[in-house]
Amino acid sequence: MSYVRNAWYVAAWAHDLKPGAPLAIHILDEPIVLWRNGDGALGALENRCVHRLAPLSLGRCEGNKLRCMYHGLLYDRDGAVVEIPGQDTIPARARVRSYPVTERHSWVWVWMGEAARADEALIPPAVGLDHPDYVLGHGQLDYAAEARLINDNLLDFSHLSYVHANSFGASETWARTRPTIKSLERGVHVGQWLEGELAPGEPETEKRVDNYNCYDYLVPGVLLMSFGSYPVGTAARLDRQAPDLDDAEGLRTFSSQAVTPTTARTSRYFFSIGPHRNHGDEAVRDMIMGVTHRAFAEDRTMIEAQQRVIDVSSNAPFMPTTADRAAALFSRLVEKLAREEDGPPRRTP
Amino acid sequence: MSYVRNAWYVAAWAHDLKPGAPLAIHILDEPIVLWRNGDGALGALENRCVHRLAPLSLGRCEGNKLRCMYHGLLYDRDGAVVEIPGQDTIPARARVRSYPVTERHSWVWVWMGEAARADEALIPPAVGLDHPDYVLGHGQLDYAAEARLINDNLLDFSHLSYVHANSFGASETWARTRPTIKSLERGVHVGQWLEGELAPGEPETEKRVDNYNCYDYLVPGVLLMSFGSYPVGTAARLDRQAPDLDDAEGLRTFSSQAVTPTTARTSRYFFSIGPHRNHGDEAVRDMIMGVTHRAFAEDRTMIEAQQRVIDVSSNAPFMPTTADRAAALFSRLVEKLAREEDGPPRRTP
Amino acid sequence: MSYVRNAWYVAAWAHDLKPGAPLAIHILDEPIVLWRNGDGALGALENRCVHRLAPLSLGRCEGNKLRCMYHGLLYDRDGAVVEIPGQDTIPARARVRSYPVTERHSWVWVWMGEAARADEALIPPAVGLDHPDYVLGHGQLDYAAEARLINDNLLDFSHLSYVHANSFGASETWARTRPTIKSLERGVHVGQWLEGELAPGEPETEKRVDNYNCYDYLVPGVLLMSFGSYPVGTAARLDRQAPDLDDAEGLRTFSSQAVTPTTARTSRYFFSIGPHRNHGDEAVRDMIMGVTHRAFAEDRTMIEAQQRVIDVSSNAPFMPTTADRAAALFSRLVEKLAREEDGPPRRTP
Repeated sequence: MSYVRNAWYVAAWAHDLKPGAPLAIHILDEPIVLWRNGDGALGALENRCVHRLAPLSLGRCEGNKLRCMYHGLLYDRDGAVVEIPGQDTIPARARVRSYPVTERHSWVWVWMGEAARADEALIPPAVGLDHPDYVLGHGQLDYAAEARLINDNLLDFSHLSYVHANSFGASETWARTRPTIKSLERGVHVGQWLEGELAPGEPETEKRVDNYNCYDYLVPGVLLMSFGSYPVGTAARLDRQAPDLDDAEGLRTFSSQAVTPTTARTSRYFFSIGPHRNHGDEAVRDMIMGVTHRAFAEDRTMIEAQQRVIDVSSNAPFMPTTADRAAALFSRLVEKLAREEDGPPRRTP
Repeated sequence: MSYVRNAWYVAAWAHDLKPGAPLAIHILDEPIVLWRNGDGALGALENRCVHRLAPLSLGRCEGNKLRCMYHGLLYDRDGAVVEIPGQDTIPARARVRSYPVTERHSWVWVWMGEAARADEALIPPAVGLDHPDYVLGHGQLDYAAEARLINDNLLDFSHLSYVHANSFGASETWARTRPTIKSLERGVHVGQWLEGELAPGEPETEKRVDNYNCYDYLVPGVLLMSFGSYPVGTAARLDRQAPDLDDAEGLRTFSSQAVTPTTARTSRYFFSIGPHRNHGDEAVRDMIMGVTHRAFAEDRTMIEAQQRVIDVSSNAPFMPTTADRAAALFSRLVEKLAREEDGPPRRTP
Repeated sequence: MSYVRNAWYVAAWAHDLKPGAPLAIHILDEPIVLWRNGDGALGALENRCVHRLAPLSLGRCEGNKLRCMYHGLLYDRDGAVVEIPGQDTIPARARVRSYPVTERHSWVWVWMGEAARADEALIPPAVGLDHPDYVLGHGQLDYAAEARLINDNLLDFSHLSYVHANSFGASETWARTRPTIKSLERGVHVGQWLEGELAPGEPETEKRVDNYNCYDYLVPGVLLMSFGSYPVGTAARLDRQAPDLDDAEGLRTFSSQAVTPTTARTSRYFFSIGPHRNHGDEAVRDMIMGVTHRAFAEDRTMIEAQQRVIDVSSNAPFMPTTADRAAALFSRLVEKLAREEDGPPRRTP
C-alpha cells in the first residue's frame, strides 16, 4: 500500500497544541514535533535532535525557537541549530527537517511531501468546531491498525448494517442497496438514499423517512459527510438524485473525519459531528456524540481484529465484492498520485 | 519440531461452546472459529472472512450458518459463502477451509489434517466429565511456551520430585527410579511403582503404601492416567508388574489431559482429574483439584521460564538423560507420523 | 558498539544476594545465576541447565551446590554436574560455564572474559556502604536502553543544565564551560570548576560558592565521583587546578555508580551517594537521596526516549559537539580494549 506524501495530514486538534507544550506525533512513520511559537504560529520539525537523537518533543519552547532539553541545542522554526551551549561554531549540517504546517478548520495540518509543492488550497474543506452553522462535538481515537483499513471501512457503509446494527440501529438497507459513486480530482464522492427508514433519533415513534447520506472522501484520508432526513417519497420524487440539503425536514448533520497513518500498523482518527443549527441544539449533539462514540468503538474492535488476522495471514488476498467500488477507486487514486510523486513511491514497511 | 496434522486436537471444553457464541482458537498457528449450529452440531471454519480477512468469530450465528459481522457475508458449515448482501452472484472461490470437528468425552476435537482421513476411531479414549465411574474436576491453562515442552514435561515424571516437592509432596522416588515404558501404535505407555510411600491425601498418618501410576500418552498430546494405592508389599508380590486397578485399596484416580499447540510459542492445556467413585467423593475431588491447581501452576512457572531461556539461547542443544526415554520415544513417533503425511512435514515457524 | 569482556561488571548489591536465594541476571546478554554458598562465598554460573535449558535460578541451594529444580541435576560451584538423579554416569559435557565472581565495596562483581585473566586488582575502587568516612544512601534502576547511552550521559555533565534544571537546580554553567579531561589507563578523568554558584542544599540563602566536581569513569562503566564546595575565589586562586577535597568548606560528597549492560537494549544502574561524615549526617544524606532519585528519573525518561528514537532511525548518525570529548575518549578506549581481547571483538546484537 502506497501513501501519498504530497498531501496535508491532520496531526492534531489545534486546541490540543498549547503554547509552551511541544507535542510528539508520528506521521507515515516519521517522528514529528509540533509546537506553537511565541507569536502563535506553528512549528513542525523532525523529532530527533541531530546531536544524539533525543526527541525534541521533550524540549523547551523559547520564543519562536525550540531547545532540546538533553544538551541544550537550540532550533529555529526552519530546523536549523542556532546555538550549541559552550561551543562557538555550528556545523552546516546541524539541522533537522522542517515540515510545512498550518492550522485550519480546528485541525493542525502537516504537509509530508516536498515543501515547495505545499499548497494550502489542497487542504480539504473540513468544518471547524467554530463554524456558525453547526453544533459540533469532537474526539479522536488511536488504532492498532494501518490507516488503509480505516479508509476502506469509511468508503463502504454496507458495514453499518452489521457492525453498527446496535449502536446506530442501522437497517439492512445500507448493505442491500448500493450508493452512487463519482470520482473527484483528489477523492471519491459517495451518495446514498435510504428509503422508508425509521426516523433517526426517534425510533420509538416508528415514523418513516427517506434519508440521504453523502460524503467526499479526499486524499490523504479525510471524510466530509452530510446527512439529511426527508419525508417518505422524496427519493422517488427526485428520481434518486441528490437532494438540496437545505430542504431537509428532519435531522441534518455534518461530520468531518480524518485518518492519519502514524506508523505502518497504527493510526490516529480525528472526528467531529453534530446537527445543523436549524435542525438541532447541544442536546441533539450530545445524543449524536453518545451514539458515535459507541459506534466508533465497534469499528475499532472490528478493524483491529481484522488487522490481527492479516498479520498472521501471510499475503492472504482480499476477495472484492460490489460494495468495494468506492474503496477500490480511492485506493487506485492514491496509488496513481503516489506514483506521480518524484522518485519511486514510498512504502511504509 | 514437527507436529502431526492427521490427528484430533482438543479445541475447547464442550460446555464452553454455547449456542449463539462463536469461539476463536488457534491450533497449529491456524485461526479457527468454532460454533454450535442451531441443531446442536458443531462447525469449525478458518477464522478469516474471504472478503477482507475479518475474523468470523466476531460473527452472528444464524441457524446452521455463520454471518461475518463486518460486511455480512454468510457462511454455511462447509465454509461456502451462501450470501453476499447486495450482490447477486457469489464467486466460486468464496469459501474458507472447514475442519472436521466433533464432540466427545466433554471435549471439542478438531482434525487438522486431510478431511478425507478424519477417523473418529483415532480420538483418544479420554474420560468425560459425565463418566459414571469418576467424580471429576476440570480446568484449563494457557501457556506462553510451545506444546513440545509440555509434552516433554508430562512424559518424564522425575520432575515431580523437584517441581512438585511442595504441592504434591512428591518423594525423591519419582526421580530415583525409572518407569516401565512401552511403545503404542499412536503413543507411549508409562507405568511406575512407587514403593513404601506416604499414603496420598493422609501424610499425617505416616501410613505407608505402594503406589502405582500409569498413563498412555497419545498423539497429538493427550495423557490418560490411572493411579492406585495398594498395601506395602504389593509391588514386590506382583514382581513390579502392572496391578489390576480394581484391586486398589487406597486412593484411585483418573486424569485426562490434553496439550494443544495454539501458536509456535503458545499452548492451551486442558485437564480433568478425580477419584473413582468407589474411592472418593466430591470432597476428595476438591482436595485433589486444589493440589492440582497448585502443581500445574508450578509446572507452568518452570516451563515458561525454560521457554524464555530457550528463546535467548540460539540452538543450544538439550543433553538427554535416562529419564528422557519416554519423551524421546514420543518425539520420534510424532516425527515419523509427520513425515508419513502427504507432502513435506509442516513446521510451525 | 563493542563491550569489554575482560572486566568486572557489577551484578548486584551484595546484600541483595541472600543465602538460599539464587538471583538471576543478564550481563552482556548472557543469563547468569548468582548464589551464596553455604560457606558464604559466591557462585556465578550460566543460568541454563545442560539438560533441558531450565534456569538454575529457580533452583535450590544445597550447601556449596545448586540443584536444578526441574529434574534435579546438581551443580558444583565450578559448573560441573555432580549428580543426575536415577542415573549412574555423568557425561563429561555435563557442565555449564562458571564466571569469576567476588564481593567488594558492597557490590557483587562478575568477570565476563577469560577466567584466567580475572584480576581483582582491576576492580574499580568504589566506596562501599560501610565506608567509615561517608554516610551513603543507595539504589538501583532498570533502563530500557543500552548501556552505552547511559555511559555517554554520565560522561557529559553539560546535560545537567537542561535535564536537571529543576531537580538539581543546575545552572547553565555546566553546559557553558568545559571540564578538564584526562585519559586514564582504564578510563577517563573529568574535573570541572563551577564558579560563583548558589551554595548546594541552601539556595534560599543566595550564598555563592565555587564548586568542584570530578570523577573517574572506569571500564566497563563505573563512575567514582567527588564533589566539594569552596569559598568564592578558590577556583581563581588555584588557577582552576584541582583542589584538595579535604579543604572543602561547604558540602562534600562521594558517589559510586555502575552501569551494567544486561541485554542489547536494557541496562541496570547501581548507585550510592552521600556526604563525607565531616560535612553532613543522615539528614543531609536523605536530602541528597531525594534529589538524586528525582534526577535519575529525569535521566531515565530522556535516555529511554532517546533509545526509542534511535530504534526507529535506521543508522541515523550522531553529530558530535565539543561536549562529547570525554564520551568519545571512553568509547575509543573500550573499543581498543575490546579489539585487544583474544579473538574478534564480541558485539551485542
